Amino acid sequence: MNKYKLAKWKIKIHEIIYEADTPAGKLFDVILLITILTSVLLVMLESVESINDKYYDFLNISEWIITILFSIEYITRILTVKKPLNYIFSFYGIVDLLSTIPKYISLIFGGIHALAALRALRLLRVFRILKLARYLGASNNLMSALKSSRAKISVFLYAVIIISIIIGTVMYLIEGEENGFTNIPKSIYWCIVTLTTVGFGDITPQTPLGQFIASFVMILGYGIIAVPTGIVSAEYSFQNKANKNKNTENLPETTSNAVQLNSLCCINCLAVGHLDDAKFCHKCGNKLHYG
Amino acid sequence: MNKYKLAKWKIKIHEIIYEADTPAGKLFDVILLITILTSVLLVMLESVESINDKYYDFLNISEWIITILFSIEYITRILTVKKPLNYIFSFYGIVDLLSTIPKYISLIFGGIHALAALRALRLLRVFRILKLARYLGASNNLMSALKSSRAKISVFLYAVIIISIIIGTVMYLIEGEENGFTNIPKSIYWCIVTLTTVGFGDITPQTPLGQFIASFVMILGYGIIAVPTGIVSAEYSFQNKANKNKNTENLPETTSNAVQLNSLCCINCLAVGHLDDAKFCHKCGNKLHYG
Amino acid sequence: MNKYKLAKWKIKIHEIIYEADTPAGKLFDVILLITILTSVLLVMLESVESINDKYYDFLNISEWIITILFSIEYITRILTVKKPLNYIFSFYGIVDLLSTIPKYISLIFGGIHALAALRALRLLRVFRILKLARYLGASNNLMSALKSSRAKISVFLYAVIIISIIIGTVMYLIEGEENGFTNIPKSIYWCIVTLTTVGFGDITPQTPLGQFIASFVMILGYGIIAVPTGIVSAEYSFQNKANKNKNTENLPETTSNAVQLNSLCCINCLAVGHLDDAKFCHKCGNKLHYG
Amino acid sequence: MNKYKLAKWKIKIHEIIYEADTPAGKLFDVILLITILTSVLLVMLESVESINDKYYDFLNISEWIITILFSIEYITRILTVKKPLNYIFSFYGIVDLLSTIPKYISLIFGGIHALAALRALRLLRVFRILKLARYLGASNNLMSALKSSRAKISVFLYAVIIISIIIGTVMYLIEGEENGFTNIPKSIYWCIVTLTTVGFGDITPQTPLGQFIASFVMILGYGIIAVPTGIVSAEYSFQNKANKNKNTENLPETTSNAVQLNSLCCINCLAVGHLDDAKFCHKCGNKLHYG
Repeated sequence: MNKYKLAKWKIKIHEIIYEADTPAGKLFDVILLITILTSVLLVMLESVESINDKYYDFLNISEWIITILFSIEYITRILTVKKPLNYIFSFYGIVDLLSTIPKYISLIFGGIHALAALRALRLLRVFRILKLARYLGASNNLMSALKSSRAKISVFLYAVIIISIIIGTVMYLIEGEENGFTNIPKSIYWCIVTLTTVGFGDITPQTPLGQFIASFVMILGYGIIAVPTGIVSAEYSFQNKANKNKNTENLPETTSNAVQLNSLCCINCLAVGHLDDAKFCHKCGNKLHYG
Repeated sequence: MNKYKLAKWKIKIHEIIYEADTPAGKLFDVILLITILTSVLLVMLESVESINDKYYDFLNISEWIITILFSIEYITRILTVKKPLNYIFSFYGIVDLLSTIPKYISLIFGGIHALAALRALRLLRVFRILKLARYLGASNNLMSALKSSRAKISVFLYAVIIISIIIGTVMYLIEGEENGFTNIPKSIYWCIVTLTTVGFGDITPQTPLGQFIASFVMILGYGIIAVPTGIVSAEYSFQNKANKNKNTENLPETTSNAVQLNSLCCINCLAVGHLDDAKFCHKCGNKLHYG
Repeated sequence: MNKYKLAKWKIKIHEIIYEADTPAGKLFDVILLITILTSVLLVMLESVESINDKYYDFLNISEWIITILFSIEYITRILTVKKPLNYIFSFYGIVDLLSTIPKYISLIFGGIHALAALRALRLLRVFRILKLARYLGASNNLMSALKSSRAKISVFLYAVIIISIIIGTVMYLIEGEENGFTNIPKSIYWCIVTLTTVGFGDITPQTPLGQFIASFVMILGYGIIAVPTGIVSAEYSFQNKANKNKNTENLPETTSNAVQLNSLCCINCLAVGHLDDAKFCHKCGNKLHYG
Repeated sequence: MNKYKLAKWKIKIHEIIYEADTPAGKLFDVILLITILTSVLLVMLESVESINDKYYDFLNISEWIITILFSIEYITRILTVKKPLNYIFSFYGIVDLLSTIPKYISLIFGGIHALAALRALRLLRVFRILKLARYLGASNNLMSALKSSRAKISVFLYAVIIISIIIGTVMYLIEGEENGFTNIPKSIYWCIVTLTTVGFGDITPQTPLGQFIASFVMILGYGIIAVPTGIVSAEYSFQNKANKNKNTENLPETTSNAVQLNSLCCINCLAVGHLDDAKFCHKCGNKLHYG
């Protein structure tokens, strides 16, 4: 007997909420997607004072409905997985908890309703529901390009930060507090604003020397942007070519680059991304259940 | 007898206003182009108060002349096509209508003259008149590069929006109403302003933590821009090479990449972009009329 | 007898001021370069009120010296070329004149001293003096890449302008005069500021709908920048490869890509860029004079 | 006897503070790294008035400790190298001195505590401590790409500066002092702010003509950015391909691209970057000491 044996109904529900191949699973995903988007919309509307004043009751009730729905989902998710702790301490498990409890907390302590905004974190799940993996399959090249340029890009980022600290400090000495560069951290903030060509304009150099150095920083920032772009561009180009050369016939990209993955989710360890004809979980070896 | 038979004069006029191969057709296009640019210029001038006050009569009369010209064109277009509804509900048909009626509406209701600005939509037709297709033929590679990177770019855009919503919400919690982040939608707007390196500066973080997160968002935005650039760059490079390898002799690009298209426009379904020696419409099979 | 015969001393001086191969020619170029930079510096200093008040006499005298030097140069250039009109109406001839006369005009009419700023145009000559051709030789690939992507980039620019006009008009309708979008040209200006990710922040949308459209414009602008970058990047990459493949041995780029040009300048038609061993001008057939 | 003979203990200490292959050397580097980051953090905190007021004593004492540590390091570095002047006048020697003395100076003259900010320069040493060479080895391609595009990028920068001066001057003439363009240097500053798409918004054009030229500058800047990006991207792509073709098996990049360098530092001339099995310094021929 398989030691990972679970009640039949749990397997059924696990299939619905963790996977998406069956009609019920797809329906569940669509409903979850709508619920999440609605909940985010509610949080947004609630933060607009005029709307909140007018529709307070409607918003409050909707919030409670959403919260209860999320609570049910959270509990079901815990129940239908063999090792609940795996889910609870997984990334999505924590996100689900954080986006569910604020309303309960507000009930006890009141007023900390700002926490409701935490529900926006749920948006992260949208990535999974929309099975962006499929699209990411289409952009497998992109992923491996980004991965293979990671080392270079972190050296680049590191250099940007060092430059910002040094120039920020110099600007603090030159401009001083009377021109808005009240302390070094703020000067560094200004330098990042300038180097990245954002340019808010809340702090601007006033002395001629300060403006000269600012000009230098701007041209530097304008030029530096060529570096990450060049790296990603070249790496991606290389990945792309390697892949396209492999497929002499010009198959649609999605099928040519991506191996076929199914939407099964291991009932034991919650691993996803199994090969289409996999029989066992590639992480824990548990048998996969096909609907 | 061909069932799509039309009166001789209608075919003649159709040729003039829908096509551009005959001298009369070219003349019509030039006049239409000038009329459209004039009409857009008029709308602009009218919106400048000092000019509107001074030259009100001149502007008003010019507007009426343009409106009448557009009306005549619109009616003629309807008359000289076999299935008028095809034109009326086509994209350009709706644009033509929207850019013609505002003046009539202002006659009835008065005062809603701001609607005249709708006439700017006519500028879209300029793309067709200038036969930018020719240039786009030159940039066929560009088009197919953009097309084949569509999936990746939409994942990218999707990620940008999710990031903006999450960080926008976080900034609302941190900065709060007293620092200009009055509600979550506005915070998200700020986040997009920052992430895209636009940086208006109408809302800026004031707290040290807010400025720290803003710095992070800016560097993120500065780096993220490398992704679409890299994608387009690599895809276009690939298309380009494929094409240029095909033509070992370095013919001028326009002729080497583009198939020869004529400027005929099917009198039945308004389809354009027929091959140079096509005898029948490739959409509806109707016989094409050569001048 | 050659009909383009010129007095011996004129040929000598022509060699000095138009060419750079002889020691005298090189010296002349260095002096000219210094004079131009000094003159631009003087114009800048003069525009700073505090400096102008303090050193008025010094600046005025220096200006006169520079003006006289430029006048002498201008007259000599006219005298030592066979067809003076060729020089006078050439691009550099006009620049030289415009940068010389402001001081004389100020003598007659007084007060129009702002015109002195025209002297900044002389900076254009610096391109020639520094023989940037040599560096541009190094970037021959760059030039041909930019040339072959001209058509595509102009379609791109055209699209940017059309988009700006349409969105600018829409924003004028939405935001209206009370939010700073006082007229359509100003709205278009705002749209260009936003689309190019400059973001001055002198005009910003205040209504929620306006901010939503602004967000859309920003993301659009953030994405659009990928297009010219991709084009230039791919074209340049293609040019580069073609060139580098040609030279299997990795010679320094300057010598490998550029044909050898000398610095001779035809005494008749002022054409430059002759091949190193050319005996006759490639434009007018006049005999070239070697020092 | 080797004339570069040094006392045994000096060689030992030299090994620890200049090199990083032995456990002691690694420990020293970690401590130095922490000290530098702490010292930079202290300078930042000190510049925040509220923090400085509250924790003045703590900060002051910490500063003195750091300063003394740095002094000891500086003196030891001088003692354990054969030709101390080589170190003293090397780049890092000057940085080390500048970042050590401010506290002593403040003792004598008092009040010039702002100089403490010079300590941020020490951050440059972090590049060396973190042995970024290893990562730079990973981005050898990047370095050679940047090197081979140096000439082109400097022509590009030169063009940007010339354009800024000319357009800055023109804007000064058009907008004038009443609209914030108080003098030509400030106008040039504005032009760089605009061309690099930073867009602070502290100075903005107010006249219609000024806004028109500004629009032109912005579109120019938006387009120009394609040039350095294209150059770096193409050069890097070329370097990358050359390298990857060399290694048909896909070894991890770091090992495939970089030659193996050790962390030895010549005791005579302080040269670093020796080959892994080098016996003599490649700069001065002095024998290298292995731990």
